[in-house]
Amino acid sequence: MPQNKQILLDNRPQGEATASNFKLVTGDTPALQDGQVLVRHHYLSLDPYMRGRMNDAKSYAQPQPLGQVMQGGTVGEVVESKSPKYKAGDKVVGMGGWQEYSVVSAEQPGALRKVDTTHVPISHYLGAVGMPGVTAWYGLVKIIDAKAGQTVAVSAATGAVGSAFGALAKARGLRVVGIAGGADKCNYAVKEIGFDACIDYREHKDAGSLSKALKEAAPDGISGYFENVGGMVMDAVMTRMNAFSRIALCGMIAGYDGKPVPMSFPQLLLTNRMRLEGFIVSEHMEVWPDALSELGQLVGSGKFRPRESVAQGIESAPEAFLGLLKGKNFGKQLVKLT
Amino acid sequence: MPQNKQILLDNRPQGEATASNFKLVTGDTPALQDGQVLVRHHYLSLDPYMRGRMNDAKSYAQPQPLGQVMQGGTVGEVVESKSPKYKAGDKVVGMGGWQEYSVVSAEQPGALRKVDTTHVPISHYLGAVGMPGVTAWYGLVKIIDAKAGQTVAVSAATGAVGSAFGALAKARGLRVVGIAGGADKCNYAVKEIGFDACIDYREHKDAGSLSKALKEAAPDGISGYFENVGGMVMDAVMTRMNAFSRIALCGMIAGYDGKPVPMSFPQLLLTNRMRLEGFIVSEHMEVWPDALSELGQLVGSGKFRPRESVAQGIESAPEAFLGLLKGKNFGKQLVKLT
Repeated sequence: MPQNKQILLDNRPQGEATASNFKLVTGDTPALQDGQVLVRHHYLSLDPYMRGRMNDAKSYAQPQPLGQVMQGGTVGEVVESKSPKYKAGDKVVGMGGWQEYSVVSAEQPGALRKVDTTHVPISHYLGAVGMPGVTAWYGLVKIIDAKAGQTVAVSAATGAVGSAFGALAKARGLRVVGIAGGADKCNYAVKEIGFDACIDYREHKDAGSLSKALKEAAPDGISGYFENVGGMVMDAVMTRMNAFSRIALCGMIAGYDGKPVPMSFPQLLLTNRMRLEGFIVSEHMEVWPDALSELGQLVGSGKFRPRESVAQGIESAPEAFLGLLKGKNFGKQLVKLT
Repeated sequence: MPQNKQILLDNRPQGEATASNFKLVTGDTPALQDGQVLVRHHYLSLDPYMRGRMNDAKSYAQPQPLGQVMQGGTVGEVVESKSPKYKAGDKVVGMGGWQEYSVVSAEQPGALRKVDTTHVPISHYLGAVGMPGVTAWYGLVKIIDAKAGQTVAVSAATGAVGSAFGALAKARGLRVVGIAGGADKCNYAVKEIGFDACIDYREHKDAGSLSKALKEAAPDGISGYFENVGGMVMDAVMTRMNAFSRIALCGMIAGYDGKPVPMSFPQLLLTNRMRLEGFIVSEHMEVWPDALSELGQLVGSGKFRPRESVAQGIESAPEAFLGLLKGKNFGKQLVKLT
């Protein structure tokens, strides 16, 4: 069996996460038992939710256990199989974790899913045609549910979720305003993804300033907002939201390091009769087929060409992850393992 | 025609509202035109929402105009009619405002509604069997929608809305925890309305302390919360809410004087996948018949005996209203005008 490099969670962050929270180890992959398959990972997905799990705090998911392989989504190829459901060469998506290989019980429901790489490059099954894409779809379709011509907004607009949200919203006839960190990202959002406008929040020192910029970008107000960050950006967007608008609350990166991120103007939820809903896409598996079908067509047809930031080799995963938390990635953050 | 004492909004509050914001005037009631009726008000309703309208700020309703009669709900008796729809002696509920008489165009939809005072005392049509009761019903039934045996909570628990919420929730088989200001009110909530527990927030100096008390009162967590006040009370309740719980956001008294009332822990909305919805009951007229039927039975059968704080005479309205904003009332705040 091949050697397998793995990244473990060694200790929990005190405030900001650092490289010293992780530990690289090398071990053998165990021999397969009946019903198991060995998967060689081609790509590892890095996602903001992983930061939350590094804390030992009550949340929707169990904390990442100390001393164990960091959990995470992977795509790869079956290299050995003792299951009738898979054969060597099958391309699969799963939750293989921060390591080069994983041994998977093929019978476990949802553990692996075969993917077709004819029209969609395999890496996109970790991004636009995977969990981040379905996340964007759920918030847009099931929570925001805006009518064609209305304006929606999204923070972290060029990330894996934000860019899929923008592409889906445009395809559904909506006006889309993005908020991102940096002129390069905003330029990309408008020119490549098709956002109608994108605001660089780094040019605004407070919510009042950002709110003024949003007024220009969304002169008719905002009917739906997909929130990835929280804090000042959320405060500013809320001041521009219309009566009966909706907020799909997907992430609050601003608070992952344990700093408090209060919502400054909750009374707007009342005066504008807004609906705000927090959600986790893995709790809504019933929407995945419809969502993946729409996302697969967007990407397969070339209408949406998701951008990726790719780090090379499992050793680079911690630094790439810390960069993601600071917004250094540009599009979906991946680690290439082959 | 009779003389009519009226209270006008003379000027807008700078921060806290004061008696000097109001002005008492006396005038004649105008002669009736065809289609109009003259109503003598028996009771004027005082409600927290009125404070919001005294500000000149964007909200769901137009600001109360300066120099005009304060708007507000009234019950009374038709004393003269030039409309075939009403005759002298009819008991009616309407929006007559802070004055002793009003002239109403009977044809205007929703302007007046006849009420039956055989089983329900007329004043309750301004409280439990009126707008405050329907407000509680909407939040409980349409937003919170808890299952029998689950725990729900409400702030300002002995106010007109909170007490109706408690009575409705108990009748529907829920565990109900109230939060109110003072031992007397909490005692009343448990002994008279039937709350399972009531916490005096004045005994807690911060959200952490109140949260501990809530853990005892709601050992299985809180599935739905009806919010009337915002601020520290809301922060504390949110720390005890369960996954997939709902918040019906009806009022934020804590912020009416223009002080900021941030929400301290908005990340809980995400980690617990909560749904929060702001609403105004007057925008959901379709539920009023069902709600009034259920509330009328609760009150008419004697299962729920709403408590009232009654001030005497139109001159007392401003002080009674300012007291309401400070929680000095005990149950529905009314002004008796006859």
